[in-house]
Amino acid sequence: MSESPRMTRRALLVGVGAAGGAGAMFAAMGALGLAPDSQEKSFVPPQPSDFSLRGRGAAKVVILGAGVAGLTCAYELGKAGYDCTVLEAADRVGGRNLTLRGGDRLVETGGETQTVEFEEGTYFNAGPGRIAQWMVTLDYCRELGVPIEVFVNNNASAYVHTAGMATPVRARAARADVYGYVAELLAKAAHTGALNERLTKEDRDRLAEFLRKFGDLGPDLTYRGSTRRGFETYPGVTGGVRDGRPPSLTDVLAAGTGRAITMDFGYEQAMPMFQPVGGMDAIVTALAREVGHDRIRTGTPVTRVRNLSDGVEVTHRDGVLRADYCVAALPPHLLARIPHNLGAPVTAALRTPVPIAAGKLGLEYGRRWWEIDDRIYGGITETELDITHIWYPSYGYHSRSGLVVGYYNTGPDAVTYGGLSHRDRLNRALTEGGKIHGEKYRRELRSGVSMAWQNRPHIEGGWVAWPSYEGAFALLQRPAGRVYFAGDWLTHLVAWQAGAMESARKAVTELHRRVLQTLS
Amino acid sequence: MSESPRMTRRALLVGVGAAGGAGAMFAAMGALGLAPDSQEKSFVPPQPSDFSLRGRGAAKVVILGAGVAGLTCAYELGKAGYDCTVLEAADRVGGRNLTLRGGDRLVETGGETQTVEFEEGTYFNAGPGRIAQWMVTLDYCRELGVPIEVFVNNNASAYVHTAGMATPVRARAARADVYGYVAELLAKAAHTGALNERLTKEDRDRLAEFLRKFGDLGPDLTYRGSTRRGFETYPGVTGGVRDGRPPSLTDVLAAGTGRAITMDFGYEQAMPMFQPVGGMDAIVTALAREVGHDRIRTGTPVTRVRNLSDGVEVTHRDGVLRADYCVAALPPHLLARIPHNLGAPVTAALRTPVPIAAGKLGLEYGRRWWEIDDRIYGGITETELDITHIWYPSYGYHSRSGLVVGYYNTGPDAVTYGGLSHRDRLNRALTEGGKIHGEKYRRELRSGVSMAWQNRPHIEGGWVAWPSYEGAFALLQRPAGRVYFAGDWLTHLVAWQAGAMESARKAVTELHRRVLQTLS
Repeated sequence: MSESPRMTRRALLVGVGAAGGAGAMFAAMGALGLAPDSQEKSFVPPQPSDFSLRGRGAAKVVILGAGVAGLTCAYELGKAGYDCTVLEAADRVGGRNLTLRGGDRLVETGGETQTVEFEEGTYFNAGPGRIAQWMVTLDYCRELGVPIEVFVNNNASAYVHTAGMATPVRARAARADVYGYVAELLAKAAHTGALNERLTKEDRDRLAEFLRKFGDLGPDLTYRGSTRRGFETYPGVTGGVRDGRPPSLTDVLAAGTGRAITMDFGYEQAMPMFQPVGGMDAIVTALAREVGHDRIRTGTPVTRVRNLSDGVEVTHRDGVLRADYCVAALPPHLLARIPHNLGAPVTAALRTPVPIAAGKLGLEYGRRWWEIDDRIYGGITETELDITHIWYPSYGYHSRSGLVVGYYNTGPDAVTYGGLSHRDRLNRALTEGGKIHGEKYRRELRSGVSMAWQNRPHIEGGWVAWPSYEGAFALLQRPAGRVYFAGDWLTHLVAWQAGAMESARKAVTELHRRVLQTLS
Repeated sequence: MSESPRMTRRALLVGVGAAGGAGAMFAAMGALGLAPDSQEKSFVPPQPSDFSLRGRGAAKVVILGAGVAGLTCAYELGKAGYDCTVLEAADRVGGRNLTLRGGDRLVETGGETQTVEFEEGTYFNAGPGRIAQWMVTLDYCRELGVPIEVFVNNNASAYVHTAGMATPVRARAARADVYGYVAELLAKAAHTGALNERLTKEDRDRLAEFLRKFGDLGPDLTYRGSTRRGFETYPGVTGGVRDGRPPSLTDVLAAGTGRAITMDFGYEQAMPMFQPVGGMDAIVTALAREVGHDRIRTGTPVTRVRNLSDGVEVTHRDGVLRADYCVAALPPHLLARIPHNLGAPVTAALRTPVPIAAGKLGLEYGRRWWEIDDRIYGGITETELDITHIWYPSYGYHSRSGLVVGYYNTGPDAVTYGGLSHRDRLNRALTEGGKIHGEKYRRELRSGVSMAWQNRPHIEGGWVAWPSYEGAFALLQRPAGRVYFAGDWLTHLVAWQAGAMESARKAVTELHRRVLQTLS
């Protein structure tokens, strides 16, 4: 596409930022009439030169939480020489960006304890698992040198399994049948003149041409099945054996495969998606490396946060830390519980978003039966069983063993599973998944590990839901005195790492602007 | 899925084959009433034990052509100890499985000569570029230890550019608009009773529920755009800036985006697809390694093929080679030109399939502008310009440079480009692609290399088209005396490596069966 005026303007700003630092950048933005809240896509990190021009050093910042938001704040502020300290209650960094490997130990708030038994090379992204192309997460992967690979979010060879269906069908067959009948119905309606008020003759001809392709219709505009459904024996020397005749229109509609067919239509889930090679935690590992491990104190819960007239004071397990500013990057429902002097409206606002339960089960198999028996290479089976999804691994193709996600569910289903012991979760998920994959699903299992995010210490939820983006959400976008807030929960990308990163960039930008204004 | 009777029977056969060799396998197949032509999916390679039980050695086979079919024949026959020699006219193995790297030299039949100038790490699959999940090609990758990764065959962020379109649009927007209007038209037709003869009340309710999801319709069943179209500024701290309003129904139909939207609906092209890591030629490199380089004679054109009463005699550049059997795995139009005594019907049959022109252009850029500027990570832009497609690389994400396929066209467009000098091909393709990507498309180019398969010595075509699968096609499935034929052109998977491999397996199976029968 040729460059739009907007892109040119953005390029100008990036150029200014690179040459003159963020201070010059903000001035240029004002001159161009850009509102500050459109910054998120033209972020310019704080730079040492922002200070050296003024002959003063950067400020001291304490960051609460070493999840993606907290680490991103420390990383970006660190570029300009801010003296950051990150306090993390858990004994590891990353927060919900959690990749589990053999030997890891999980203790839930209720006491349930698991030790991961995966073999070398097997990993399980228990939190976020996929990244869309447009997300800032990929920019951090590029900048940090974290190699990426495709996450297969949709696979024509995976299964669809609904309550309205006797046996699972391949996604390709479900799609071919629905599209075939939809195309037939519309083409025939148009043919009989039912749409003449809306469509010109030329429109109708073009529509018919499209519908023939879309539904693989016969010359009489009828759907009678299609090679798109797949084959029992795929073509080779012979033309192959087609995978049966399609069910009737009524049966196809009754099967209710709509969710499965449209799952990747949205801007968040469209193919292709990506993942870091070797595990999602490569991102937080790289961020922590850049921040410096000496600046991150794990196993250090915060017990009090106070705004002072000239700084902030944070009390933690091992003592008291004073700084010029604070960025609070904890889940809001946990932050609300920490004693502070930020005011009752802040506490009320932090209590407004509702934590959502989310569960994920990792199943390690010693044989990649989904590739060998089912010819499924990555992707997701959609089901109306309470396991909701079965994910096949997008890494380690053709290797000996592999990691299947046995459920990824939220809300009531996640509450149900989270209320069980790990053993019972596993047993239930194997029974349910066995309805799709048969006996081997249980028989060939090597080991499993389950995550109930609502039971995870220092996190206590998969993500949060806001009743609205007004009021509390807006209030927490602003600092409370010298305390800034950051997290995916403060964005329109709740539950995505990109949200945590965008929110961190906003907090860093505003904090840095304030510091520069104070200096000038 | 639980195991079907068919699968169980197949498993039985594989078990028999593994234990007792192919001879026992064929006996078991007969007992079970399986037709021989359903073998292709239950292939059991010849084994040394097939002979040792009979106390005799394997036969000597000369194979014409070291493309995928020829190498697969030599590899499979070699497992049982056949004494194979592969004669290849070109100075490298692989045939159309050709990966170009810096330093490679290309000479066309017309004399046009290019030297590839790519930097270290850049490669261009000038022939096949993608593998479907069900294809036997993946089995060979597994067996040979060739690592694979996802080939992005469809990308919601790539562009669609048709003659009916003023400017290119993102594939996600084209899809959202077409699906939105299709859903609206059908939902409203159903609502007004136009489909009452065909649909029950329950059908109609289910259809409406599906169409709302499918088209992202409003409660009034109207399409007014969707976040699925994408954003000018994606959501982050703010809700983002939507990417404009959709064009009118008439304009969407006039844009004619049907081909682009349906390109991955078929069983051959459905996502995800795969490619070997590091270049498609990893497959032929591995096959040649297993066959043994001492058994492959490159630069050795064949000049005559003769059936004898007790063997075959093949005359080549350096002499005469006698063997018990021959597998001719050359393109049929080239084989037809080699003097032989296989009879006039064979010559006529070999002349029946029509060679098809195909062209592909590799463009190396020093900056991955498609990722950085356009946020396109792999995938294909579909256009009605004569370049037909622009492929973005599915490897090397985030690295410094990258390889874009500037055209992949066939038929008249390929003939047009193939008739030009490389310099003119490049110039034309840059002008055309620039209509989609702007000035940088030419400005940032580092180097390019073009392949016109119809001009490739010893190949002379992208693939062939058969007028029918009767007659000549059927004749060449059978050996002419002791000469067997193999190649993708002898299958229903013309132009796919999987076709060459399936055909090779068939030739090997039949040849081996004959040898065993001769011995018994």
